[in-house]
Amino acid sequence: MICENLGVNSLGHLTFAGLDTVELAEKYGTPLYVMDENRIRHNCRVYVNAMKKYFGENAGCLYASKACSFKKLYEIVGEEGFGTDVVSSGEVYTALKAGFPLENAFFHSNNKTDEDIAFAIDNGIGYFVCDNIEEVNAISEIAAEKGVTQKVLLRLTPGIDPHTYEAVNTGKVDSKFGSAIETGQGFEITKLTLGLKNIKLCGFHCHIGSQIFDSEIYIRGSEIMLEFIAKVKKELGFTAEILDLGGGYGVRYIEANPYIDIDKNIALLADFMKKTVAQLGIEMPKIYLEPGRSIVADAGITLYTAGTLKKIPGYKNYVSIDGGMADNPRYALYGSYYSVVSASRPEAECDMLCTLAGRCCESGDLIQENIRLPHDIKRGEKIAVLTTGAYNYSMSSNYNRLGKPAVIMIKDKEDFIAVKRETLEDIIRNDM
Amino acid sequence: MICENLGVNSLGHLTFAGLDTVELAEKYGTPLYVMDENRIRHNCRVYVNAMKKYFGENAGCLYASKACSFKKLYEIVGEEGFGTDVVSSGEVYTALKAGFPLENAFFHSNNKTDEDIAFAIDNGIGYFVCDNIEEVNAISEIAAEKGVTQKVLLRLTPGIDPHTYEAVNTGKVDSKFGSAIETGQGFEITKLTLGLKNIKLCGFHCHIGSQIFDSEIYIRGSEIMLEFIAKVKKELGFTAEILDLGGGYGVRYIEANPYIDIDKNIALLADFMKKTVAQLGIEMPKIYLEPGRSIVADAGITLYTAGTLKKIPGYKNYVSIDGGMADNPRYALYGSYYSVVSASRPEAECDMLCTLAGRCCESGDLIQENIRLPHDIKRGEKIAVLTTGAYNYSMSSNYNRLGKPAVIMIKDKEDFIAVKRETLEDIIRNDM
Repeated sequence: MICENLGVNSLGHLTFAGLDTVELAEKYGTPLYVMDENRIRHNCRVYVNAMKKYFGENAGCLYASKACSFKKLYEIVGEEGFGTDVVSSGEVYTALKAGFPLENAFFHSNNKTDEDIAFAIDNGIGYFVCDNIEEVNAISEIAAEKGVTQKVLLRLTPGIDPHTYEAVNTGKVDSKFGSAIETGQGFEITKLTLGLKNIKLCGFHCHIGSQIFDSEIYIRGSEIMLEFIAKVKKELGFTAEILDLGGGYGVRYIEANPYIDIDKNIALLADFMKKTVAQLGIEMPKIYLEPGRSIVADAGITLYTAGTLKKIPGYKNYVSIDGGMADNPRYALYGSYYSVVSASRPEAECDMLCTLAGRCCESGDLIQENIRLPHDIKRGEKIAVLTTGAYNYSMSSNYNRLGKPAVIMIKDKEDFIAVKRETLEDIIRNDM
Repeated sequence: MICENLGVNSLGHLTFAGLDTVELAEKYGTPLYVMDENRIRHNCRVYVNAMKKYFGENAGCLYASKACSFKKLYEIVGEEGFGTDVVSSGEVYTALKAGFPLENAFFHSNNKTDEDIAFAIDNGIGYFVCDNIEEVNAISEIAAEKGVTQKVLLRLTPGIDPHTYEAVNTGKVDSKFGSAIETGQGFEITKLTLGLKNIKLCGFHCHIGSQIFDSEIYIRGSEIMLEFIAKVKKELGFTAEILDLGGGYGVRYIEANPYIDIDKNIALLADFMKKTVAQLGIEMPKIYLEPGRSIVADAGITLYTAGTLKKIPGYKNYVSIDGGMADNPRYALYGSYYSVVSASRPEAECDMLCTLAGRCCESGDLIQENIRLPHDIKRGEKIAVLTTGAYNYSMSSNYNRLGKPAVIMIKDKEDFIAVKRETLEDIIRNDM
């Protein structure tokens, strides 16, 4: 199986985090997001331990909560020693209500509104990661009105194309995010920021891309950022305390995806960076990484109930399920790969090539094409889509007026509800 | 302008349905969906009048509510003499709470769950449009348990490729929807359905695709369906009372899209179908069309506030706004075209080629590329994206924990709230 938290029990059912997925589907209904708290904690510890081991105490991890945000998650990552990366007032508010210490929160996004800025300052946000000069100016003005000095980082684009697909590629020069080093705009915004009142510039941030499997990309990114830090020290006399290298380590959606050894990657990165700071004659800043997907993706699966198996002779076979692009739009958006298995009988021979189709009234509502399932899938059979912990619940919509599924969590083989299923009343709550 | 409900007032601001869009943005905040009730009613009347004129009283229109579903819309289309096409218990419930007569509702979808079927029958749904035989069997069983006879149509795929893009192309043989005529499966499901208890087969449905500009496609679709109706009459002795030809007429998102004369298209269709039924020796069934997009698309715009203008020398210019793929995922999903204008100064020279970027933390979160706006867009300026009445609110998500925008409606130059803005409390309502 794609992750060690999956198995098969004596009834021949798929297990996840030690529990029978068919039982969970029957207990809570489908579609159902199921998350493995122990796996989330394990994934956090891999990062925290590696960062401590190779960078020492002057390092930290931030959970990129856009991957999956609800109250319980902030509790878990906070307990594991993570800070968090938030991108909206909604994420700030969720973290706040979860009791997460907001001084450990970094507010990203390429466009924070004045309302976001005021709300976050009022609630004691640790840092803004500023995307552009209009934003820094707005923060300066709002902080002045409130009589505070706000800590900020600046988001820079190191100009690296990680050769992942365009849609999740954010470290290139041509990006809606950040200020490019190559064009001189990164230097310019640094100079301007240092001249602003009520702003304390603490360092820099970059994010090269997502679902990256090549450790060399981070090494190259860190080199460009450290050279920039050396340049601003020399030319502007500014010492960056923090360098946040973003997130992006890939996860295994299908067997063909390589396994990433996070510990080894961080070791290589630290080794390179220590040599580089020595060569550049600068101090090592506090280093942050911002994993999101690699914390929660393999800690989640989605359970569905099959509706029909449609065999169109000479064409394709379609297995329809009771969810779709409303709860997982990633195939419709990016053609993302997923592993799919019958939860009712994961060991049955997968002798049928088919498409897993969602229930939305749209041809593009497919969860996966060219997968293999048993040839005799029946109405009522439970289907599991694996590695859905990231960017599924967080991207879910109410398309076709479908309520969002519940998120249940499993800790030490005990299941509990982390997010309640949306009801019909929830659907019309705001309709006048 | 792309639609006659757009204009410019004496302040130089964009008007929509006669009201100042900058004032609306300031009154209700942004992002903001704005809908023009008069335009919705106008669009409904074009269909209703044409159907009566060319098909007589034995014809009807169904609003495809997946395009945009909230209570007020069912009220409006109901008053205009439309039935409705619903695809989930959520849409059934919304229609029900709007006081919509459910005997005029047709329940579509390629995968209705047993719960959907029971819920819809309990609430007096008019028809199920059945996708496949498992579904017909399920309806038969549930109707039997409830001691009722349920009216159904069967969804058939006529095998027409409308040469629109793959994702909205549903009338081909290779489709997750319906039963193909070409493979004999359409005939087979008809025979099986006629043999089931507690089911009254009333006719057939097809849906060829979306955003179709070529009237010939509907004519060819109707021919295949009428030939099928003649065949089942001859071979099975079954007379179809209803033929539902689906939706799909295109709308103008940009000036380059052709204008469709719905009245003329329906005239041509009726003329052809009258000749065809005469040739086939069958009665004309009751004809339904199911417009969704062409009822609401040009009756809606979205208002945003600009955050920053980022000019990357040698690359691109990015204008960021306070919404994005969370409220309009259609560019991210399909690369859909939209017209974009500065609501604050629609008559300013559009001398800058740029990308309109959303605020979500994702490179693919763009609303439109290669558009023209004034070169000096400022933070705070209001931006309007036009023709967003269809598949924007309905597909909206809470990605990045952004609350869904309010939908405000304008009737006879009076504005009112149709759907309230989601609050921070709404965002965490179901978090445990």
